[in-house]
Amino acid sequence: MEKRRIQIFDTTLRDGEQVPGCKLNTKEKVIIAKKLELLGVDVIEAGFPTSSPGDFQSVQEICKSVSNTIICALSRAVDKDIETAGLSLQSAKRPRIHTGIGTSNCHIRYKFNSTPEKIIERAIHAVKYAKKFVEDVEFYAEDAGRTENIFLAKVCENVIKYGATVINIPDTTGYCLPEEYGNKIRFLKENVKGIHKIILSTHCHNDLGLATANSLTGIMYGANQVECTINGIGERAGNTSLEEIVMIIKQNSHLNLFTNINTKLIASISNLVSECTGMKVQANKAIVGINAFSHSSGIHQDGIIKKRETYESINPKDVGIDKSSIILTARSGRSALAYRYKKLGYFLNQNALDLVYSIFLKYADKKKEITDMELKTILKKANLNKEKNNQVLHTNNTNSNNIRINVV
Amino acid sequence: MEKRRIQIFDTTLRDGEQVPGCKLNTKEKVIIAKKLELLGVDVIEAGFPTSSPGDFQSVQEICKSVSNTIICALSRAVDKDIETAGLSLQSAKRPRIHTGIGTSNCHIRYKFNSTPEKIIERAIHAVKYAKKFVEDVEFYAEDAGRTENIFLAKVCENVIKYGATVINIPDTTGYCLPEEYGNKIRFLKENVKGIHKIILSTHCHNDLGLATANSLTGIMYGANQVECTINGIGERAGNTSLEEIVMIIKQNSHLNLFTNINTKLIASISNLVSECTGMKVQANKAIVGINAFSHSSGIHQDGIIKKRETYESINPKDVGIDKSSIILTARSGRSALAYRYKKLGYFLNQNALDLVYSIFLKYADKKKEITDMELKTILKKANLNKEKNNQVLHTNNTNSNNIRINVV
Repeated sequence: MEKRRIQIFDTTLRDGEQVPGCKLNTKEKVIIAKKLELLGVDVIEAGFPTSSPGDFQSVQEICKSVSNTIICALSRAVDKDIETAGLSLQSAKRPRIHTGIGTSNCHIRYKFNSTPEKIIERAIHAVKYAKKFVEDVEFYAEDAGRTENIFLAKVCENVIKYGATVINIPDTTGYCLPEEYGNKIRFLKENVKGIHKIILSTHCHNDLGLATANSLTGIMYGANQVECTINGIGERAGNTSLEEIVMIIKQNSHLNLFTNINTKLIASISNLVSECTGMKVQANKAIVGINAFSHSSGIHQDGIIKKRETYESINPKDVGIDKSSIILTARSGRSALAYRYKKLGYFLNQNALDLVYSIFLKYADKKKEITDMELKTILKKANLNKEKNNQVLHTNNTNSNNIRINVV
Repeated sequence: MEKRRIQIFDTTLRDGEQVPGCKLNTKEKVIIAKKLELLGVDVIEAGFPTSSPGDFQSVQEICKSVSNTIICALSRAVDKDIETAGLSLQSAKRPRIHTGIGTSNCHIRYKFNSTPEKIIERAIHAVKYAKKFVEDVEFYAEDAGRTENIFLAKVCENVIKYGATVINIPDTTGYCLPEEYGNKIRFLKENVKGIHKIILSTHCHNDLGLATANSLTGIMYGANQVECTINGIGERAGNTSLEEIVMIIKQNSHLNLFTNINTKLIASISNLVSECTGMKVQANKAIVGINAFSHSSGIHQDGIIKKRETYESINPKDVGIDKSSIILTARSGRSALAYRYKKLGYFLNQNALDLVYSIFLKYADKKKEITDMELKTILKKANLNKEKNNQVLHTNNTNSNNIRINVV
């Protein structure tokens, strides 16, 4: 069976950036956009040009700096927004306007003080108006996660009729469970006239920790674009993490899906985005956290030293990380300790290792991590008699001063 | 239909703690354990007593400090480990030993250099031996995520026969997709003799960002215990986040599930664990990140000011956070700006707001966030003529000096 391609729509520079504590200047946005193109994303959502002069300028500059990737600009279903988006995209080789309106009862009633019929009229008008500026128009049905499927299908059918090329089904408030979101996508695939001519897109928020699972279910049930951000940054609890959905697709060939992403660049673009935005990545973040390929407990270290696959199902090399790390803590066991001493040039026999390990544990119980320097102090404390018992053999192979020892 | 109770097994102090960069002393562990009991978890996995004297002592002290919650101690399928675990639990009112062994081909072959038959023998021996110390014995089939279901069922059937009261199905390497993990649980429910007498438990790792979704599918398909940690800390990319799985269950009454967790304590225990362990929570972490209930973009702020539910499906009060936050950035719109000025005691009419907003955007394009002090500077720059045009009305209602303004 031929594999189906999933397009990656990166919104790090738009949804990712519109969060408290994050601010990118135009220069930084251009640097990130160029790196996103190298990474192989299909679409870069560059900003929301009507929101500020700075954002308008950033979109313009990104259009000039990126060669082949589609550049997308966000707008509300408001003429002025759409005009501004169109203007900002003038230098883009492949421009896309992303426009839309809230479709849930909650949005229609409380945000717009409107009616379903009027919302459809506004949606049609927005798409028609955007088509005056660009050919490629993506429509978002905001809060689709809480929109009734029958009304959502009606909205989709109407915007397709007036030229939408992509339809985005955002779970704006991170409300859906995976099955529910997947069923929504399936319902649209099965019930909307013309749906097979357009690209159906997922856009999931992580309020319940399910953004990645929802996007996955969405594409398994027929969507062919995923909107996501580097490190999962974005409104509130953020968006689907690009690195997670891409690696899920790569690791699971039975899904019969593929993306154009060069996964080996994931670690470096994650660092770039974290540094530029100031949005720190937590140590236990999937794939890009500093601990994602680190091991400190004895059971796991012993396994990793014997064979990496015992405790890692992803190869760190696939995401641009050279090696797994073995960190010495109070949870480490003898095999990791012996391994680290060996790296420092000391070969300990069983008796020596038992003695050194008991001293090591007393140190480690008081500290987060034991360094090479401390390993040497521990060895002195153990007061091993080399000549008599051949307990410890010191070679010249002192090839490591790292605190973190990597497993090849 | 009667709701089914899901037990919450918290392993913050064991799996959560055994990570690089994290180290808790006994005093901190006791403080966290007491708070976990208040939170309402069903089981506290307190440590891996054989790993170090400090960890042994911590388990002992926790047993003395906690009244009603089950205290669990980890061990390998090794007699000395089990003895040490049993010893550490002597003061516990409700002790549990958690013992087990790797069951995947990868673990059997590379970690144990063994055979499936011998692994079953060791599993049976471990359970029988643990039963000498405690009545409540949980068995883990390590790397169950990559273990063939038929062999896994055979292991489960055998340990049930010899007295296991709980069986844990860990996706040790974070390998499974939700459907796959759910089907594994269903297979065991349907094919293991005696499975209905015991508690079947999920234990999922987040290497692909799917720990929460996998746990959810596991309980939907029949598991009745979830192993998880506060803030999702744990080996590599961490474990299922307690706060995510608990809030999913709470928000989705159609699942017909419930837990005993007092969700209003989630924010405070998240802070406690983050401070004690030094494991920082990223801003966009679901439920407990600083941005989880913060809004900076104009579209969202406008909605939130009109009605909180437009952009939040979880009520922040439910997790112990007083209010949502409105942060002023370059993505903010006029309504948020007017709202913030109003809080400072300034009522701007439309013309004044337009003028002030244009100056605000120039400031905001250069900054991450605009403070109250800067709002006052902006007002001066706008040089509004109060008397002539009634553009700005200053009252004495200057009730806020906060940078973050909260929406009630």
